[in-house]
Amino acid sequence: MIKPRTLNGFRDYLPSVMIPRERLMETARGVFRSFGFAPIDTPTLEYLEILTGKGSDETDRQIYRFEDNGGRAVGMRFDLTVPLARFAAQHINELGTPFKRYHIAPVWRGERPQAGRYREFIQCDFDTIGTTGVMADIETVAVIDRLLSQIGFERFTISINNRGVLTELLRHLEMENKTVELLRALDKLAKIGRDRVAAEMCDTAGVTAAQADKVLALAELNGDAESIFQRLPDLVGPGEAGQAAIERLKDVYQGALAAGVPAERIKIDVSIARGLDYYTGMIFETTLDDLPKIGSVCSGGRYDNLAGLYTKQHLPGIGASLGLDRLLAAMETLDLLGDAKTPADVFIAYFDADRRDDYLTLSAALRDRGISNEIYPEPKKLGAQLKYADGRGFKIAIVAGANEWSEDRVQVKTLASKQTQDVNYRHDQSDDLVQALKQILAGEV
Amino acid sequence: MIKPRTLNGFRDYLPSVMIPRERLMETARGVFRSFGFAPIDTPTLEYLEILTGKGSDETDRQIYRFEDNGGRAVGMRFDLTVPLARFAAQHINELGTPFKRYHIAPVWRGERPQAGRYREFIQCDFDTIGTTGVMADIETVAVIDRLLSQIGFERFTISINNRGVLTELLRHLEMENKTVELLRALDKLAKIGRDRVAAEMCDTAGVTAAQADKVLALAELNGDAESIFQRLPDLVGPGEAGQAAIERLKDVYQGALAAGVPAERIKIDVSIARGLDYYTGMIFETTLDDLPKIGSVCSGGRYDNLAGLYTKQHLPGIGASLGLDRLLAAMETLDLLGDAKTPADVFIAYFDADRRDDYLTLSAALRDRGISNEIYPEPKKLGAQLKYADGRGFKIAIVAGANEWSEDRVQVKTLASKQTQDVNYRHDQSDDLVQALKQILAGEV
Repeated sequence: MIKPRTLNGFRDYLPSVMIPRERLMETARGVFRSFGFAPIDTPTLEYLEILTGKGSDETDRQIYRFEDNGGRAVGMRFDLTVPLARFAAQHINELGTPFKRYHIAPVWRGERPQAGRYREFIQCDFDTIGTTGVMADIETVAVIDRLLSQIGFERFTISINNRGVLTELLRHLEMENKTVELLRALDKLAKIGRDRVAAEMCDTAGVTAAQADKVLALAELNGDAESIFQRLPDLVGPGEAGQAAIERLKDVYQGALAAGVPAERIKIDVSIARGLDYYTGMIFETTLDDLPKIGSVCSGGRYDNLAGLYTKQHLPGIGASLGLDRLLAAMETLDLLGDAKTPADVFIAYFDADRRDDYLTLSAALRDRGISNEIYPEPKKLGAQLKYADGRGFKIAIVAGANEWSEDRVQVKTLASKQTQDVNYRHDQSDDLVQALKQILAGEV
Repeated sequence: MIKPRTLNGFRDYLPSVMIPRERLMETARGVFRSFGFAPIDTPTLEYLEILTGKGSDETDRQIYRFEDNGGRAVGMRFDLTVPLARFAAQHINELGTPFKRYHIAPVWRGERPQAGRYREFIQCDFDTIGTTGVMADIETVAVIDRLLSQIGFERFTISINNRGVLTELLRHLEMENKTVELLRALDKLAKIGRDRVAAEMCDTAGVTAAQADKVLALAELNGDAESIFQRLPDLVGPGEAGQAAIERLKDVYQGALAAGVPAERIKIDVSIARGLDYYTGMIFETTLDDLPKIGSVCSGGRYDNLAGLYTKQHLPGIGASLGLDRLLAAMETLDLLGDAKTPADVFIAYFDADRRDDYLTLSAALRDRGISNEIYPEPKKLGAQLKYADGRGFKIAIVAGANEWSEDRVQVKTLASKQTQDVNYRHDQSDDLVQALKQILAGEV
């Protein structure tokens, strides 16, 4: 006998977790589609050279790689960005631009497993490729707002910045040759705090404590958007690039408001640096106000050229990644997940063995009217069946025995409140029952 | 520069294929849930010994296998049945029975790629575990009927049989010791025809031509269900096992009718043999009446013990597999797929650069009312924008320039018919526009 077990760093998804996970993905797909983002999919396995093309040594080490039966060096994708770049290089002439795509799929990284982190996890990315228009930047913010709202969050903050603002700020302070080190330190501000960031700046960028202080003062520029936009031009200095970056940031902010994103959800945060060598324009992060410590749940930015490794065609774009697994964990913490182990609402007890076909007809009638339901597969004792229904998380149980069937009625039991009512039902007359069930499911009784 | 390409036997899914593929999966999920099947997921990678545990040599050869960084022999799953068996053995005490699950996920087989067959493809399985009740058999037929109907097929046939009927038939003919060879030949009846099956029977089972003829006559037993059920008892002979199998088959047939499956979609077909050593009770296949040659699009059966390799716990069940890729190909052949390259309905031209925020507010208002839409990201010439909209497959384009905005109206262009109408619209008054759009989308104008 073989011991049934999963590999270290991998996990099974039981219904109680998989049901909300599917719901999350469906919500995301619905939002993406409502903005005209189209789905794509790419192979799990790619030529290894495609995957390692631009990766860091760190990423390279994490790739699951092997030689296939044909002797090819292959790897399992470790993100959805590299496959998108390869995909775009290969198909963009057929696809045309602007090209808006979403991609929800698993990726694999052979990293040391940590609490809550797995070697296989879902990524959920959306990108707009082939345009530098600010409309795409604005829309990205609007998508994030709608994603989180529809998933069920109300209190969250989309922090936006523009790489140009940050770069020109540093130039104005005559620290542009320290940009990489300063930004790398700055990026940790939320995580490790002001003092340790200042120390790191002095350490790695070789700036004085006073200079570090100036950078941090800028990064901590606070207040509402209007006051920040008033102070920024002077801080950034008179250069054209800096002023253009500020204008662009302002455009994104105003556009997002016009698109219906509440002002209190957008924060202008010039301390965000992200992806030092990749992003070139707008950059953004999203945090849950009630759980700031879990970090950003949706991040990304604008890049100049997506697929330079695979094509000479210049493909600017903007993209974001929604942290599905992190969101799921957050929802669990905030008690936003149900605990149902079934996707169906109504349980039908199979009580009277002679009436098998009647239960089947009842089940089909409810399903036709949009009420999901399950019949117990065996005419066991009612107590055992109701225990099963309760354990699975059904909201309602329908019980009908010889008496009920002969009197054209069924018993409707609301499992949470343990209330029971008699409702008229005949195979050719199910309106009363459908109405009663819908009322209970809507929480009206 | 690295040449962008996919591995042999793998493919990219562009939006025009991915949109209907997602729709298909969503329909399947909806149907499964409406019967109370719950989703699960399992890791892509499993210990190799888990995967090879019961596989045939043929399957073993096809597994993508390698040694991971920890030196473990691992493999990528080649179906969803082995992972389900492992999963059930590991979790069944927590899950309880009956356990109804669906699982829609990719699997990998390193077989020689053929036209229309890939090394990575989606499987879509549903199973009811832990019950021998006929209710589960009936429900399986009802699920298949609803799956194919909701996907958009009207003309299809679910052929059902019971392994007991077939086995007892052969015993009655005193050919039970030839069962394996005879069934293996019989299984090819639809594919290679009567004559070649008869020849194979003589060849491999060593029966006479007359005996082969008898088996084939039984297998070709034809007519409506009632007449078949009348003739079966005599043919199968007086043994208890045979009569019980016939009764069970009759129960499934009658139950399916009660569950609303149209009689003309169910065929009693005692020639179906499938999975010689695995299935033990009901077995079934589903063919599209308009495309019989593509073979079964949904098959499966009842098994006695799912997970004997991994647990001593006895787990009977019944399951089926929906051939998603085959269905997609069929839908393409039958012209049941649209050719849209966008999931959104309405295109909003970005025409007047000064009105950027107005387009954004319009877009959000329509989205709030359930109308998916996309704004062109740059204020390009209208002709280029409309060409883009047409190429993507949008149904409607909304055009508004300085005149329209100042007069509180927009132009609504139906792209297929090239009709244009003026419709009143203000940000605080979008009812007229929403109604006009919904009418066009519903095909009412």
